[in-house]
Amino acid sequence: MLEELLYPQTLAVIGASKTPGKVGYAILENLLKGGYSGKIIPVNPTTDELMGLRCYKDPRDAHETIDHAVIVVPNKAVKAAIESSVAAGARAVTVITAGFKETGPEGLALEKEIAAYCRNRKVRLLGPNCLGLINTENGMNASFAAQMPKPGSIAIMSQSGALCTAILDWAEGRGVGLSKLISIGNKADICETDLLQCLAEDAQTKVIVAYLESIQSGAEFIRIAESVCAQKPVVILKAGVTAAGGKAASSHTGSLAGADIAYGAAFKRSGIVRAEDFESLFDYALAFANQPLPKGDRIVVITNAGGPGIMAADAVELEGMKMESLTPSVAEAIKTKLPPAASVANPVDVLGDAEPGRYAMALEAVLGDDRADGVVVILTPQAMSDPDATAREIIRWCASGSPKPVLACFMGGSQVSSARAILLEGGIPDYPSPERAVRALKAMVEYVRWKNRPSRVVTRFPVNRHRVERILARQVRSGRKEMGEVEAKEILKAYDFYVPPGGLARTAEEAIMIAERVGYPVVMKIVSPDILHKSDVGGVKLNLGKPQEVQDAFDLMMLRISRACPDAYLRGVFIEKMCKPGREVILGMHRDPQFGPMLMFGLGGIFVEVMKDVSFYLAPITKNEALQMLQNTRSYALLRGARGQAAVDMDAIAGALQRISQLVTDFPQIEEMDINPFIVGEVGTPPVVADARMIISGVE
Amino acid sequence: MLEELLYPQTLAVIGASKTPGKVGYAILENLLKGGYSGKIIPVNPTTDELMGLRCYKDPRDAHETIDHAVIVVPNKAVKAAIESSVAAGARAVTVITAGFKETGPEGLALEKEIAAYCRNRKVRLLGPNCLGLINTENGMNASFAAQMPKPGSIAIMSQSGALCTAILDWAEGRGVGLSKLISIGNKADICETDLLQCLAEDAQTKVIVAYLESIQSGAEFIRIAESVCAQKPVVILKAGVTAAGGKAASSHTGSLAGADIAYGAAFKRSGIVRAEDFESLFDYALAFANQPLPKGDRIVVITNAGGPGIMAADAVELEGMKMESLTPSVAEAIKTKLPPAASVANPVDVLGDAEPGRYAMALEAVLGDDRADGVVVILTPQAMSDPDATAREIIRWCASGSPKPVLACFMGGSQVSSARAILLEGGIPDYPSPERAVRALKAMVEYVRWKNRPSRVVTRFPVNRHRVERILARQVRSGRKEMGEVEAKEILKAYDFYVPPGGLARTAEEAIMIAERVGYPVVMKIVSPDILHKSDVGGVKLNLGKPQEVQDAFDLMMLRISRACPDAYLRGVFIEKMCKPGREVILGMHRDPQFGPMLMFGLGGIFVEVMKDVSFYLAPITKNEALQMLQNTRSYALLRGARGQAAVDMDAIAGALQRISQLVTDFPQIEEMDINPFIVGEVGTPPVVADARMIISGVE
Repeated sequence: MLEELLYPQTLAVIGASKTPGKVGYAILENLLKGGYSGKIIPVNPTTDELMGLRCYKDPRDAHETIDHAVIVVPNKAVKAAIESSVAAGARAVTVITAGFKETGPEGLALEKEIAAYCRNRKVRLLGPNCLGLINTENGMNASFAAQMPKPGSIAIMSQSGALCTAILDWAEGRGVGLSKLISIGNKADICETDLLQCLAEDAQTKVIVAYLESIQSGAEFIRIAESVCAQKPVVILKAGVTAAGGKAASSHTGSLAGADIAYGAAFKRSGIVRAEDFESLFDYALAFANQPLPKGDRIVVITNAGGPGIMAADAVELEGMKMESLTPSVAEAIKTKLPPAASVANPVDVLGDAEPGRYAMALEAVLGDDRADGVVVILTPQAMSDPDATAREIIRWCASGSPKPVLACFMGGSQVSSARAILLEGGIPDYPSPERAVRALKAMVEYVRWKNRPSRVVTRFPVNRHRVERILARQVRSGRKEMGEVEAKEILKAYDFYVPPGGLARTAEEAIMIAERVGYPVVMKIVSPDILHKSDVGGVKLNLGKPQEVQDAFDLMMLRISRACPDAYLRGVFIEKMCKPGREVILGMHRDPQFGPMLMFGLGGIFVEVMKDVSFYLAPITKNEALQMLQNTRSYALLRGARGQAAVDMDAIAGALQRISQLVTDFPQIEEMDINPFIVGEVGTPPVVADARMIISGVE
Repeated sequence: MLEELLYPQTLAVIGASKTPGKVGYAILENLLKGGYSGKIIPVNPTTDELMGLRCYKDPRDAHETIDHAVIVVPNKAVKAAIESSVAAGARAVTVITAGFKETGPEGLALEKEIAAYCRNRKVRLLGPNCLGLINTENGMNASFAAQMPKPGSIAIMSQSGALCTAILDWAEGRGVGLSKLISIGNKADICETDLLQCLAEDAQTKVIVAYLESIQSGAEFIRIAESVCAQKPVVILKAGVTAAGGKAASSHTGSLAGADIAYGAAFKRSGIVRAEDFESLFDYALAFANQPLPKGDRIVVITNAGGPGIMAADAVELEGMKMESLTPSVAEAIKTKLPPAASVANPVDVLGDAEPGRYAMALEAVLGDDRADGVVVILTPQAMSDPDATAREIIRWCASGSPKPVLACFMGGSQVSSARAILLEGGIPDYPSPERAVRALKAMVEYVRWKNRPSRVVTRFPVNRHRVERILARQVRSGRKEMGEVEAKEILKAYDFYVPPGGLARTAEEAIMIAERVGYPVVMKIVSPDILHKSDVGGVKLNLGKPQEVQDAFDLMMLRISRACPDAYLRGVFIEKMCKPGREVILGMHRDPQFGPMLMFGLGGIFVEVMKDVSFYLAPITKNEALQMLQNTRSYALLRGARGQAAVDMDAIAGALQRISQLVTDFPQIEEMDINPFIVGEVGTPPVVADARMIISGVE
């Protein structure tokens, strides 16, 4: 995949320049300096030779099959450069040149034109408006960043070219090796999803790191990311998280789900490790690239200083992992080899005068203990400390020890700097604070949890699809996107939801007739396409127990609403058998522009409106994921039966979420929907759709 | 304050050693190497000369008045060493020696002995079990840490000696200057509060940084810290935050308030800036030490890279600060001097090819803009970047510009390392990621908010103290620490709470008599010292409207409860006028062992029990702080009148919290209390104490 892009035999630089300071000069120079193993063909109409290479007016003049062309000519000349490169055989082009989409409509048009050209000819296009790319395996630095990283196992893609330069400089400073570095620019063709797929297959890459500001195609991204994450960890920093989602949404689900929540849900689904800030991006990457994955979340801390040990223990608990004691026999074995003042509880305090041997002894024992899933080794430079030798001991024991992650935290400055370099060189990631080491372990634990998740089996329920098709078609013909209670309930009924028996009544007599049929007590609700919030206008009347009450309620409702909303078209009232009281919850769906249908669950009323206590998941959803949605709300204890109330039927709620998942996957024209309230009783009682509404696309 | 400790004219080292590797050797060597300006008197009975200094068998032999003695003899010999030092004039001793409280009961006894000896003679004692102390003003390195920091404005105290060595090494590595570094060890005498007070007066110190695992005397700490923070910022990392509070508490307030919440409340009250982890401790310290305080929370970001600019903007919003646009005229002025592609929205993007002059131009303009309260300058090393020169431009403009904080974030490694050193040397703190720079600004903004808080005026209400004294005395005589509803309500009545009229009835006839007197409907509740949760045993009956109903309820209650709890002593029932419905809230108090009375507020029922939606504040409390307690709950919107309900009388709740504050300050023997529920209606309706209970100390 993307073979021509990353491993070209022949690489042309269109717009190579002889003027130092020019990007076209820098790229050619970097290719030569980096030791690129393929053939380089500089193209520049004004000269015959560049940096000792034969230079051509046109790529075709070289009479070689070009695999990949890097283009640095002015934006207006890019199209022609691509054309001549493709004519010379190029299957991949990298457009460094800026002045496209990012500059406005004219640039956008130019960008669309080159993208279409490449697409039609099955030529892959990286950029435009990017820094270029680096592959350390074949020594190809096809970028204008001067620093060539050493080979390593971290692959990086970045939507910010400038960030690439900072990353390269950081990597050099810390001695971190990279496999690939790819600046993705405007993503006219090649996007993060293509690169994920390509880097998943790259044998050099152990962990994929990405800085992204947007994602091109949400659904495909999730699909690919899910399969890539099963192979190797992907760590992403998504910037722009606070920018409002954009779309002013009319339902609960819409207003509660910002764009960032959708990204969160997508990353969670697909197993992506999310970095909260720039430093954690590489903190996590170093751990994944260098250490085995932990089996569980029990962390043991080894330290020569009490304070930092406490910091680490605090962080382990705050991150939701466990500080368990060592197996007694292991603890005893360590204790006999330490001075009496040493503690062998967790943290294992090897004391301030610990020399390398004491660290080695403790580490060996901890690595052999079944109760330790991951280890943090802390050192502060004290009189008897030998940081360098301690670092080497750690490396030695990790090489020969059991497969558990060991992260180090050598705190200080000049006295530990060479030890930190030794650690990293030896494959032990080192962090400047205990908290950062612990957070990196947490990222590994989370990834392992995702990998070990139950296999995703989405249940398909037998439903009446045709009926829904007919109702939707009717709604589209009506020209209204808001679908009221009556039709929404018909759709839900077709998907096997329990809807109380009832019917539409135009007159009081009809209302009584329906009430007699379904049985008292009944509920009466106004039916009008112009009234969205029925109870706000007195359009809901509960617990009507007799024909006379139905008669009175009908007359009063019609009188009052036609006074309050003189322009509203009143279709009549909906008479429905009143359902038994139970726990009211809200189920909803909002179609994220990027990632598609996002399901929502929350307890009704104030829990949603005031406490914002809701959870989201992307459809399609499994039963297990549906149950997790319930567990992820703070009010979950209420469902389980806190405060003396009976537990509600959680499987019934999970089933309802799965049915909604199926419905909105089957019918993309359902833009939004709410079941509010969905009334759930104890286990065994069928839950009831008390009210529902939908927004349909394809109508104005 | 602590003059002899920090500025001794004559300093004795009791236990000075000639053997390299010994602590007594290291201290003498460090004093000499550090360039201590006073006179050094080594004491060691086995030699006459040490490192060129005359050495004595006993400090008295020197015939000099010793101000401060540093003691490094074995633990059993410490007492004698202190005695001879005091005899030689010492007013301060630092005991480096370990083997005291930290080792068990024997060590604790030894520690108490030396502490008492010093206290009786008004000699101040630092330690034992500490690293010593460093004062860069007089060149005194009276510690066994080899590194002597350069003079600076950050003072550090640490409860972990080992952490001091890491801090010193870090400071040297980054070129950070310190004023004092004090290892506080076991705090047998001198504690964090003494040092806060002393460092507040220290002219060299601009910011006080502390690593603490415990606080000696909570109330005094708060009092002193509040006055110190008014003078200069204090940044504290409190470790051990996840250790459970210890005390198994029986009330809501107790079970919800862990020790860490108490520390949080104490720090908030006293203006302490809390660092969440080791790195933020120094991130914040560098900002406070080097930059002026911001006037507000509007942050402007200047960057040569889009990605990091977005990261900074995200962080500003996530931290609750503002990314406002520049004043149009300022934006326009910058725009004319930048290439067309540059953005002058906030972030101001000076583009990848920005040279130092472009940064200077943008910074000058932003510093002059009224809409900017603080600035973050970001640089990534790109082809045209000159990090060193840019650093110097920033320093120049900050020196001549308006008094606003400017923090830098030069991202990368070797290409920016000299620039980072230049920045710090020039007083511009530099951070490795945009997020860390922004969080440091947030710490400054929070500190300024605290400084500008309204002045604290605690209202004292006219109350009947004597009546409470009598009730409490009676309770103590009863020998029961749980005080039931009847007495708790009497106490609250004396503090002017509205309690519904009612009385204790022993027979059904008495119950009816009281009901007739207070007026129907009434509430009946069981009164028994053995029954804590009345409703669990059917001991509460609401809405009794007639004599017959009272009669029936009485007979049934007595019958059933004496069956269910055969051993409970039933005093009778409490008959009370039933109060009007309203919003139920819980008011409580729990006495934190460290910081004293912690007030609690929460909405009743599930909000407290399931959602844990409560807020805390330390008494005594002002009206403003009481209102803040309401605002700090997530359910605050319900009080304001969400979901169509009327707003409740918030001043009435605030008033009740203030009265509780006064009550528990007046009567320290009230250990815990709950008013649950406290029923609040609309503005103007007096709120009602529907139920209450207290726990009284001094009884078993």
